[in-house]
Amino acid sequence: MGLKLYYASGACSFVPHSSLELAGASFEPSMVKLHKGEQRAPEYLAINPRGQVPVLVDGDEVITQIPAIVLYLDAQFPEAGLLPASGVARTRALQTLAWMNNTVHPTFTHVFMPQKFTADEAAQKAVKAHAVEVYRGLLGELEALAQKASPWLGGDKPGALDAYALTLLRWGGFAGIDPNSLPATWALVQRFAALPAVARAMERERLELNVYKG
Amino acid sequence: MGLKLYYASGACSFVPHSSLELAGASFEPSMVKLHKGEQRAPEYLAINPRGQVPVLVDGDEVITQIPAIVLYLDAQFPEAGLLPASGVARTRALQTLAWMNNTVHPTFTHVFMPQKFTADEAAQKAVKAHAVEVYRGLLGELEALAQKASPWLGGDKPGALDAYALTLLRWGGFAGIDPNSLPATWALVQRFAALPAVARAMERERLELNVYKG
Ligand SMILES: N[C@@H](CCC(=O)N[C@@H](CS)C(=O)NCC(=O)O)C(=O)O
Ligand SMILES: N[C@@H](CCC(=O)N[C@@H](CS)C(=O)NCC(=O)O)C(=O)O
Repeated sequence: MGLKLYYASGACSFVPHSSLELAGASFEPSMVKLHKGEQRAPEYLAINPRGQVPVLVDGDEVITQIPAIVLYLDAQFPEAGLLPASGVARTRALQTLAWMNNTVHPTFTHVFMPQKFTADEAAQKAVKAHAVEVYRGLLGELEALAQKASPWLGGDKPGALDAYALTLLRWGGFAGIDPNSLPATWALVQRFAALPAVARAMERERLELNVYKG
Repeated sequence: MGLKLYYASGACSFVPHSSLELAGASFEPSMVKLHKGEQRAPEYLAINPRGQVPVLVDGDEVITQIPAIVLYLDAQFPEAGLLPASGVARTRALQTLAWMNNTVHPTFTHVFMPQKFTADEAAQKAVKAHAVEVYRGLLGELEALAQKASPWLGGDKPGALDAYALTLLRWGGFAGIDPNSLPATWALVQRFAALPAVARAMERERLELNVYKG
Protein backbone atom coordinates (compact mmCIF):
# COMPACT_ATOMS: atom_id res chain seq x y z
CA MET A 1 0.00 0.00 0.00
CA GLY A 2 1.64 3.27 1.07
CA LEU A 3 1.39 6.80 -0.22
CA LYS A 4 1.60 7.84 -3.85
CA LEU A 5 1.54 11.39 -5.18
CA TYR A 6 0.64 12.35 -8.72
CA TYR A 7 2.29 15.68 -9.43
CA ALA A 8 3.41 17.88 -12.31
CA SER A 9 6.56 19.93 -12.46
CA GLY A 10 5.96 23.47 -11.24
CA ALA A 11 2.24 22.95 -10.69
CA CYS A 12 0.20 23.47 -7.54
CA SER A 13 1.01 19.86 -6.65
CA PHE A 14 4.22 21.31 -5.25
CA VAL A 15 2.20 22.03 -2.09
CA PRO A 16 1.59 18.36 -1.17
CA HIS A 17 4.90 17.34 -2.75
CA SER A 18 7.02 19.52 -0.48
CA SER A 19 4.68 18.77 2.45
CA LEU A 20 5.38 15.05 2.07
CA GLU A 21 9.10 15.77 2.03
CA LEU A 22 8.84 18.06 5.07
CA ALA A 23 6.97 15.30 6.91
CA GLY A 24 9.71 12.82 6.06
CA ALA A 25 7.01 10.57 4.59
CA SER A 26 7.94 7.70 2.37
CA PHE A 27 5.90 8.00 -0.82
CA GLU A 28 6.02 7.09 -4.47
CA PRO A 29 6.17 10.21 -6.66
CA SER A 30 4.50 9.82 -10.05
CA MET A 31 5.01 12.62 -12.57
CA VAL A 32 2.21 13.66 -14.92
CA LYS A 33 3.40 15.64 -17.96
CA LEU A 34 0.74 18.30 -18.34
CA HIS A 35 2.32 19.80 -21.49
CA LYS A 36 1.98 16.38 -23.15
CA GLY A 37 -1.68 16.13 -22.05
CA GLU A 38 -1.05 13.06 -19.87
CA GLN A 39 -3.72 14.33 -17.45
CA ARG A 40 -6.32 13.59 -20.14
CA ALA A 41 -5.12 10.05 -20.88
CA PRO A 42 -7.71 7.36 -20.04
CA GLU A 43 -5.40 5.78 -17.42
CA TYR A 44 -5.09 9.08 -15.58
CA LEU A 45 -8.79 9.95 -15.87
CA ALA A 46 -9.48 6.58 -14.24
CA ILE A 47 -7.61 7.92 -11.18
CA ASN A 48 -8.91 11.49 -11.32
CA PRO A 49 -11.82 12.06 -13.70
CA ARG A 50 -11.22 15.81 -13.42
CA GLY A 51 -7.84 15.41 -15.16
CA GLN A 52 -5.87 17.45 -12.67
CA VAL A 53 -2.95 17.13 -10.29
CA PRO A 54 -2.43 16.77 -7.36
CA VAL A 55 -3.82 13.38 -6.43
CA LEU A 56 -2.73 11.67 -3.24
CA VAL A 57 -3.35 7.94 -3.05
CA ASP A 58 -3.18 6.19 0.32
CA GLY A 59 -3.94 2.52 -0.13
CA ASP A 60 -7.52 2.45 -1.39
CA GLU A 61 -8.14 6.15 -0.81
CA VAL A 62 -7.81 8.65 -3.64
CA ILE A 63 -7.75 12.24 -2.42
CA THR A 64 -7.91 15.39 -4.55
CA GLN A 65 -8.17 19.13 -3.74
CA ILE A 66 -5.21 20.76 -2.06
CA PRO A 67 -6.96 21.79 1.19
CA ALA A 68 -8.27 18.24 1.67
CA ILE A 69 -4.86 16.73 0.91
CA VAL A 70 -3.08 19.13 3.26
CA LEU A 71 -5.55 18.41 6.08
CA TYR A 72 -5.09 14.70 5.46
CA LEU A 73 -1.29 14.89 5.59
CA ASP A 74 -1.47 17.13 8.64
CA ALA A 75 -3.56 14.48 10.41
CA GLN A 76 -1.20 11.66 9.34
CA PHE A 77 1.99 13.54 10.29
CA PRO A 78 1.02 15.84 13.16
CA GLU A 79 4.62 16.19 14.35
CA ALA A 80 5.58 17.80 11.01
CA GLY A 81 3.55 20.91 11.77
CA LEU A 82 2.38 21.38 8.17
CA LEU A 83 -0.34 23.54 9.71
CA PRO A 84 -0.37 25.10 13.19
CA ALA A 85 -1.77 22.50 15.59
CA SER A 86 -4.62 24.47 17.16
CA GLY A 87 -6.21 27.69 18.24
CA VAL A 88 -6.20 31.05 16.52
CA ALA A 89 -3.03 30.21 14.59
CA ARG A 90 -4.73 27.20 13.01
CA THR A 91 -7.86 29.13 12.10
CA ARG A 92 -5.74 31.88 10.49
CA ALA A 93 -3.73 29.29 8.56
CA LEU A 94 -6.84 27.50 7.28
CA GLN A 95 -8.21 30.86 6.19
CA THR A 96 -5.01 31.68 4.30
CA LEU A 97 -4.85 28.21 2.76
CA ALA A 98 -8.45 28.50 1.54
CA TRP A 99 -7.81 32.00 0.14
CA MET A 100 -4.69 30.87 -1.72
CA ASN A 101 -6.66 27.94 -3.11
CA ASN A 102 -9.99 29.62 -3.98
CA THR A 103 -8.76 33.08 -5.01
CA VAL A 104 -5.05 33.44 -5.81
CA HIS A 105 -4.57 30.08 -7.55
CA PRO A 106 -7.70 30.42 -9.78
CA THR A 107 -6.62 33.95 -10.73
CA PHE A 108 -3.35 32.58 -12.05
CA THR A 109 -5.29 30.00 -14.07
CA HIS A 110 -6.76 32.96 -15.99
CA VAL A 111 -3.23 34.12 -16.80
CA PHE A 112 -1.88 30.71 -17.75
CA MET A 113 -4.89 29.06 -19.37
CA PRO A 114 -7.31 31.83 -20.49
CA GLN A 115 -8.72 29.30 -22.98
CA LYS A 116 -10.46 27.65 -20.02
CA PHE A 117 -12.72 30.71 -19.74
CA THR A 118 -13.70 31.46 -23.34
CA ALA A 119 -13.03 30.12 -26.84
CA ASP A 120 -12.90 33.69 -28.23
CA GLU A 121 -9.27 34.70 -28.74
CA ALA A 122 -9.75 38.43 -28.28
CA ALA A 123 -11.67 37.75 -25.06
CA GLN A 124 -8.86 35.43 -23.88
CA LYS A 125 -6.37 38.27 -24.32
CA ALA A 126 -8.60 40.65 -22.35
CA VAL A 127 -9.12 38.11 -19.57
CA LYS A 128 -5.41 37.37 -19.32
CA ALA A 129 -4.35 41.03 -19.18
CA HIS A 130 -6.96 41.75 -16.50
CA ALA A 131 -5.93 38.70 -14.46
CA VAL A 132 -2.28 39.76 -14.43
CA GLU A 133 -3.27 42.99 -12.68
CA VAL A 134 -5.56 41.22 -10.21
CA TYR A 135 -2.79 38.70 -9.52
CA ARG A 136 -0.33 41.50 -8.83
CA GLY A 137 -2.74 42.85 -6.21
CA LEU A 138 -3.20 39.43 -4.63
CA LEU A 139 0.57 38.92 -4.38
CA GLY A 140 0.57 42.29 -2.64
CA GLU A 141 -1.79 40.84 -0.04
CA LEU A 142 0.52 37.84 0.29
CA GLU A 143 3.43 40.23 0.81
CA ALA A 144 1.59 41.76 3.79
CA LEU A 145 1.25 38.26 5.28
CA ALA A 146 4.92 37.49 4.61
CA GLN A 147 5.92 40.69 6.40
CA LYS A 148 4.29 39.30 9.53
CA ALA A 149 5.70 35.76 9.16
CA SER A 150 7.45 34.68 12.37
CA PRO A 151 9.43 33.23 10.81
CA TRP A 152 7.11 31.10 8.60
CA LEU A 153 3.60 31.88 7.39
CA GLY A 154 2.11 29.37 9.84
CA GLY A 155 4.41 30.37 12.70
CA ASP A 156 7.44 28.50 14.00
CA LYS A 157 7.47 25.63 11.51
CA PRO A 158 7.73 25.69 7.72
CA GLY A 159 4.65 24.14 6.16
CA ALA A 160 1.92 24.07 3.58
CA LEU A 161 1.38 27.86 3.46
CA ASP A 162 5.03 28.48 2.67
CA ALA A 163 4.88 25.85 -0.08
CA TYR A 164 1.84 27.53 -1.61
CA ALA A 165 3.56 30.94 -1.32
CA LEU A 166 6.57 29.58 -3.19
CA THR A 167 4.33 28.25 -5.95
CA LEU A 168 2.27 31.42 -6.28
CA LEU A 169 5.28 33.75 -6.25
CA ARG A 170 7.08 31.55 -8.79
CA TRP A 171 4.01 31.68 -11.06
CA GLY A 172 4.13 35.45 -10.72
CA GLY A 173 7.39 35.34 -12.67
CA PHE A 174 5.50 33.85 -15.64
CA ALA A 175 3.00 36.69 -15.32
CA GLY A 176 5.83 39.23 -15.57
CA ILE A 177 5.93 40.02 -11.86
CA ASP A 178 9.47 40.37 -10.51
CA PRO A 179 9.84 38.48 -7.20
CA ASN A 180 12.19 41.24 -6.04
CA SER A 181 9.19 43.58 -6.04
CA LEU A 182 7.80 41.47 -3.15
CA PRO A 183 10.84 41.37 -0.88
CA ALA A 184 9.34 39.75 2.24
CA THR A 185 7.70 36.97 0.23
CA TRP A 186 10.82 36.49 -1.88
CA ALA A 187 13.05 36.20 1.20
CA LEU A 188 10.65 33.72 2.82
CA VAL A 189 10.40 31.64 -0.35
CA GLN A 190 14.17 31.51 -0.76
CA ARG A 191 14.62 30.41 2.86
CA PHE A 192 11.94 27.77 2.33
CA ALA A 193 13.47 26.47 -0.90
CA ALA A 194 16.82 26.08 0.87
CA LEU A 195 15.47 23.60 3.44
CA PRO A 196 16.88 20.16 2.57
CA ALA A 197 13.41 18.56 2.44
CA VAL A 198 12.07 21.25 0.12
CA ALA A 199 15.22 21.16 -1.99
CA ARG A 200 14.52 17.45 -2.64
CA ALA A 201 11.07 18.28 -4.01
CA MET A 202 12.49 21.17 -6.08
CA GLU A 203 15.14 18.89 -7.52
CA ARG A 204 12.70 16.11 -8.36
CA GLU A 205 10.59 18.70 -10.24
CA ARG A 206 13.74 20.32 -11.71
CA LEU A 207 12.39 23.70 -10.60
CA GLU A 208 14.07 27.00 -11.16
CA LEU A 209 12.94 29.28 -8.36
CA ASN A 210 13.04 32.58 -10.26
CA VAL A 211 11.44 32.32 -13.70
CA TYR A 212 10.99 36.09 -14.14
CA LYS A 213 12.59 37.39 -17.34
CA GLY A 214 13.31 41.11 -16.99
CA MET B 1 -18.72 38.78 22.85
CA GLY B 2 -20.54 35.90 21.18
CA LEU B 3 -20.87 34.96 17.54
CA LYS B 4 -21.81 37.37 14.79
CA LEU B 5 -22.31 36.53 11.13
CA TYR B 6 -22.13 39.03 8.30
CA TYR B 7 -24.19 37.61 5.45
CA ALA B 8 -25.99 38.69 2.28
CA SER B 9 -29.29 37.37 1.06
CA GLY B 10 -28.82 34.46 -1.34
CA ALA B 11 -25.02 34.67 -1.27
CA CYS B 12 -22.52 31.95 -0.37
CA SER B 13 -22.83 33.12 3.24
CA PHE B 14 -25.88 30.86 3.34
CA VAL B 15 -23.41 28.03 4.07
CA PRO B 16 -22.31 29.36 7.49
CA HIS B 17 -25.74 30.92 8.06
CA SER B 18 -27.62 27.63 7.84
CA SER B 19 -24.75 25.83 9.61
CA LEU B 20 -25.15 28.14 12.62
CA GLU B 21 -28.89 27.42 12.65
CA LEU B 22 -28.30 23.66 12.31
CA ALA B 23 -25.90 23.83 15.25
CA GLY B 24 -28.48 25.65 17.33
CA ALA B 25 -25.90 28.36 17.94
CA SER B 26 -26.94 31.69 19.31
CA PHE B 27 -25.52 34.37 17.01
CA GLU B 28 -26.17 37.89 15.83
CA PRO B 29 -27.00 37.99 12.13
CA SER B 30 -25.90 41.15 10.36
CA MET B 31 -27.11 41.65 6.81
CA VAL B 32 -24.88 43.29 4.19
CA LYS B 33 -26.75 44.59 1.14
CA LEU B 34 -24.44 43.71 -1.73
CA HIS B 35 -26.69 45.33 -4.37
CA LYS B 36 -26.31 48.60 -2.47
CA GLY B 37 -22.53 48.20 -2.32
CA GLU B 38 -22.49 48.03 1.48
CA GLN B 39 -19.56 45.56 1.26
CA ARG B 40 -17.42 48.45 -0.01
CA ALA B 41 -18.39 50.90 2.74
CA PRO B 42 -15.45 51.93 4.96
CA GLU B 43 -17.12 50.42 8.06
CA TYR B 44 -17.41 47.05 6.36
CA LEU B 45 -13.91 47.16 4.85
CA ALA B 46 -12.63 47.73 8.37
CA ILE B 47 -14.05 44.29 9.22
CA ASN B 48 -13.13 42.54 5.97
CA PRO B 49 -10.74 44.48 3.72
CA ARG B 50 -11.64 42.12 0.85
CA GLY B 51 -15.20 43.47 0.86
CA GLN B 52 -16.92 40.09 0.84
CA VAL B 53 -19.32 38.03 2.88
CA PRO B 54 -19.31 35.75 4.81
CA VAL B 55 -17.46 36.98 7.88
CA LEU B 56 -17.81 35.16 11.18
CA VAL B 57 -16.82 37.11 14.27
CA ASP B 58 -16.22 35.27 17.53
CA GLY B 59 -15.23 37.73 20.22
CA ASP B 60 -11.92 39.15 18.99
CA GLU B 61 -11.57 36.70 16.12
CA VAL B 62 -12.61 37.64 12.61
CA ILE B 63 -12.80 34.64 10.28
CA THR B 64 -13.30 34.69 6.51
CA GLN B 65 -13.26 32.00 3.80
CA ILE B 66 -16.02 29.41 3.85
CA PRO B 67 -13.84 26.31 4.42
CA ALA B 68 -12.14 27.98 7.39
CA ILE B 69 -15.48 29.13 8.84
CA VAL B 70 -17.04 25.69 8.41
CA LEU B 71 -14.07 23.98 10.07
CA TYR B 72 -14.27 26.50 12.89
CA LEU B 73 -18.00 25.93 13.46
CA ASP B 74 -17.50 22.18 13.19
CA ALA B 75 -14.90 22.37 15.96
CA GLN B 76 -17.13 24.59 18.14
CA PHE B 77 -20.26 22.48 17.64
CA PRO B 78 -19.03 18.91 17.10
CA GLU B 79 -22.38 17.40 18.06
CA ALA B 80 -24.06 19.18 15.12
CA GLY B 81 -22.23 17.03 12.59
CA LEU B 82 -21.76 19.87 10.10
CA LEU B 83 -19.03 17.66 8.63
CA PRO B 84 -18.54 13.92 9.19
CA ALA B 85 -16.49 13.49 12.38
CA SER B 86 -13.61 11.36 11.08
CA GLY B 87 -12.16 8.84 8.71
CA VAL B 88 -12.79 8.41 5.01
CA ALA B 89 -16.15 10.19 5.23
CA ARG B 90 -14.49 13.31 6.60
CA THR B 91 -11.75 13.30 3.98
CA ARG B 92 -14.37 12.91 1.21
CA ALA B 93 -16.43 15.75 2.68
CA LEU B 94 -13.44 18.10 2.95
CA GLN B 95 -12.59 17.28 -0.66
CA THR B 96 -16.13 18.09 -1.79
CA LEU B 97 -16.24 21.27 0.30
CA ALA B 98 -12.95 22.46 -1.22
CA TRP B 99 -14.14 21.64 -4.75
CA MET B 100 -17.42 23.51 -4.27
CA ASN B 101 -15.45 26.46 -2.93
CA ASN B 102 -12.50 26.56 -5.35
CA THR B 103 -14.20 25.40 -8.55
CA VAL B 104 -18.02 25.52 -8.64
CA HIS B 105 -18.47 28.77 -6.69
CA PRO B 106 -15.81 30.71 -8.71
CA THR B 107 -17.36 29.45 -11.95
CA PHE B 108 -20.67 31.00 -10.95
CA THR B 109 -18.88 34.27 -10.21
CA HIS B 110 -18.06 34.38 -13.94
CA VAL B 111 -21.78 34.08 -14.72
CA PHE B 112 -22.93 36.62 -12.16
CA MET B 113 -20.10 39.16 -12.18
CA PRO B 114 -18.20 38.80 -15.48
CA GLN B 115 -17.02 42.38 -14.97
CA LYS B 116 -14.62 40.98 -12.33
CA PHE B 117 -12.65 39.29 -15.10
CA THR B 118 -12.40 41.96 -17.80
CA ALA B 119 -13.53 45.53 -18.43
CA ASP B 120 -14.23 44.70 -22.11
CA GLU B 121 -17.98 44.23 -22.59
CA ALA B 122 -17.76 41.83 -25.53
CA ALA B 123 -15.27 39.72 -23.59
CA GLN B 124 -17.61 39.76 -20.55
CA LYS B 125 -20.38 38.31 -22.70
CA ALA B 126 -18.08 35.58 -24.01
CA VAL B 127 -16.85 34.72 -20.51
CA LYS B 128 -20.39 34.56 -19.12
CA ALA B 129 -21.73 32.34 -21.91
CA HIS B 130 -18.77 29.98 -21.52
CA ALA B 131 -19.14 29.87 -17.73
CA VAL B 132 -22.84 28.91 -17.97
CA GLU B 133 -21.87 25.77 -19.88
CA VAL B 134 -19.02 24.92 -17.52
CA TYR B 135 -21.38 25.48 -14.57
CA ARG B 136 -23.94 23.13 -16.10
CA GLY B 137 -21.24 20.43 -16.25
CA LEU B 138 -20.20 21.06 -12.65
CA LEU B 139 -23.79 20.78 -11.43
CA GLY B 140 -23.82 17.47 -13.32
CA GLU B 141 -20.90 16.34 -11.12
CA LEU B 142 -22.85 17.51 -8.06
CA GLU B 143 -25.84 15.48 -9.27
CA ALA B 144 -23.65 12.34 -9.28
CA LEU B 145 -22.73 13.07 -5.64
CA ALA B 146 -26.38 13.70 -4.72
CA GLN B 147 -27.35 10.35 -6.25
CA LYS B 148 -25.07 8.67 -3.72
CA ALA B 149 -26.18 10.80 -0.73
CA SER B 150 -27.25 8.60 2.16
CA PRO B 151 -29.32 10.48 2.89
CA TRP B 152 -27.22 13.71 3.07
CA LEU B 153 -24.05 14.62 1.18
CA GLY B 154 -21.94 14.10 4.30
CA GLY B 155 -23.79 10.96 5.40
CA ASP B 156 -26.38 10.61 8.14
CA LYS B 157 -26.55 14.28 9.21
CA PRO B 158 -27.47 17.36 7.20
CA GLY B 159 -24.57 19.79 7.13
CA ALA B 160 -22.34 22.23 5.32
CA LEU B 161 -22.19 20.31 2.04
CA ASP B 162 -25.96 20.27 1.73
CA ALA B 163 -26.05 24.01 2.42
CA TYR B 164 -23.49 24.64 -0.32
CA ALA B 165 -25.43 22.36 -2.68
CA LEU B 166 -28.59 24.38 -2.03
CA THR B 167 -26.75 27.61 -2.78
CA LEU B 168 -25.07 26.33 -5.94
CA LEU B 169 -28.25 24.73 -7.33
CA ARG B 170 -30.24 27.88 -6.56
CA TRP B 171 -27.64 29.99 -8.39
CA GLY B 172 -28.06 27.59 -11.32
CA GLY B 173 -31.58 28.98 -11.71
CA PHE B 174 -30.11 32.45 -12.36
CA ALA B 175 -27.85 30.84 -14.99
CA GLY B 176 -30.91 29.39 -16.74
CA ILE B 177 -30.45 25.86 -15.41
CA ASP B 178 -33.72 24.22 -14.36
CA PRO B 179 -33.33 22.49 -10.97
CA ASN B 180 -35.70 19.79 -12.23
CA SER B 181 -32.97 18.78 -14.69
CA LEU B 182 -30.92 17.68 -11.65
CA PRO B 183 -33.49 15.57 -9.83
CA ALA B 184 -31.32 14.01 -7.10
CA THR B 185 -29.80 17.36 -6.13
CA TRP B 186 -33.18 19.08 -6.31
CA ALA B 187 -34.81 16.48 -4.06
CA LEU B 188 -31.95 16.73 -1.56
CA VAL B 189 -32.04 20.52 -1.55
CA GLN B 190 -35.81 20.58 -1.02
CA ARG B 191 -35.51 18.15 1.91
CA PHE B 192 -32.73 20.30 3.35
CA ALA B 193 -34.68 23.54 2.97
CA ALA B 194 -37.61 21.96 4.82
CA LEU B 195 -35.61 21.32 8.00
CA PRO B 196 -36.82 23.81 10.64
CA ALA B 197 -33.30 25.14 11.28
CA VAL B 198 -32.63 25.69 7.60
CA ALA B 199 -36.07 27.20 7.10
CA ARG B 200 -35.16 29.85 9.70
CA ALA B 201 -32.09 30.86 7.69
CA MET B 202 -34.11 30.85 4.44
CA GLU B 203 -36.75 33.04 6.03
CA ARG B 204 -34.23 35.49 7.46
CA GLU B 205 -32.72 35.83 3.96
CA ARG B 206 -36.22 35.85 2.36
CA LEU B 207 -35.03 33.21 -0.09
CA GLU B 208 -37.09 31.70 -2.83
CA LEU B 209 -35.70 28.21 -3.42
CA ASN B 210 -36.43 27.97 -7.14
CA VAL B 211 -35.45 31.12 -9.03
CA TYR B 212 -35.45 29.45 -12.46
CA LYS B 213 -37.70 31.24 -14.96
CA GLY B 214 -38.70 28.83 -17.77
N1 LIG C 1 -8.99 22.64 -7.29
C1 LIG C 1 -7.80 21.87 -7.53
C2 LIG C 1 -6.99 22.57 -8.59
C3 LIG C 1 -5.90 21.73 -9.18
C4 LIG C 1 -5.25 22.41 -10.38
O1 LIG C 1 -5.49 23.59 -10.67
N2 LIG C 1 -4.37 21.64 -11.08
C5 LIG C 1 -3.73 22.12 -12.28
C6 LIG C 1 -2.23 22.33 -12.09
S1 LIG C 1 -1.86 23.69 -10.98
C7 LIG C 1 -3.88 21.06 -13.36
O2 LIG C 1 -3.79 19.87 -13.09
N3 LIG C 1 -4.10 21.49 -14.61
C8 LIG C 1 -4.14 20.62 -15.73
C9 LIG C 1 -5.23 20.96 -16.67
O3 LIG C 1 -6.11 21.73 -16.28
O4 LIG C 1 -5.23 20.43 -17.78
C10 LIG C 1 -7.00 21.68 -6.23
O5 LIG C 1 -7.19 22.45 -5.28
O6 LIG C 1 -6.22 20.71 -6.11
N1 LIG D 1 -13.40 33.05 -1.16
C1 LIG D 1 -14.54 33.57 -0.41
C2 LIG D 1 -15.58 33.99 -1.44
C3 LIG D 1 -16.68 34.83 -0.87
C4 LIG D 1 -17.58 35.40 -1.95
O1 LIG D 1 -17.49 35.00 -3.13
N2 LIG D 1 -18.48 36.32 -1.53
C5 LIG D 1 -19.37 36.99 -2.45
C6 LIG D 1 -20.82 36.56 -2.26
S1 LIG D 1 -21.13 34.88 -2.73
C7 LIG D 1 -19.31 38.48 -2.17
O2 LIG D 1 -19.25 38.90 -1.02
N3 LIG D 1 -19.35 39.30 -3.22
C8 LIG D 1 -19.44 40.71 -3.09
C9 LIG D 1 -18.55 41.42 -4.05
O3 LIG D 1 -17.69 40.75 -4.65
O4 LIG D 1 -18.71 42.63 -4.21
C10 LIG D 1 -15.08 32.52 0.57
O5 LIG D 1 -14.79 31.33 0.39
O6 LIG D 1 -15.71 32.89 1.57
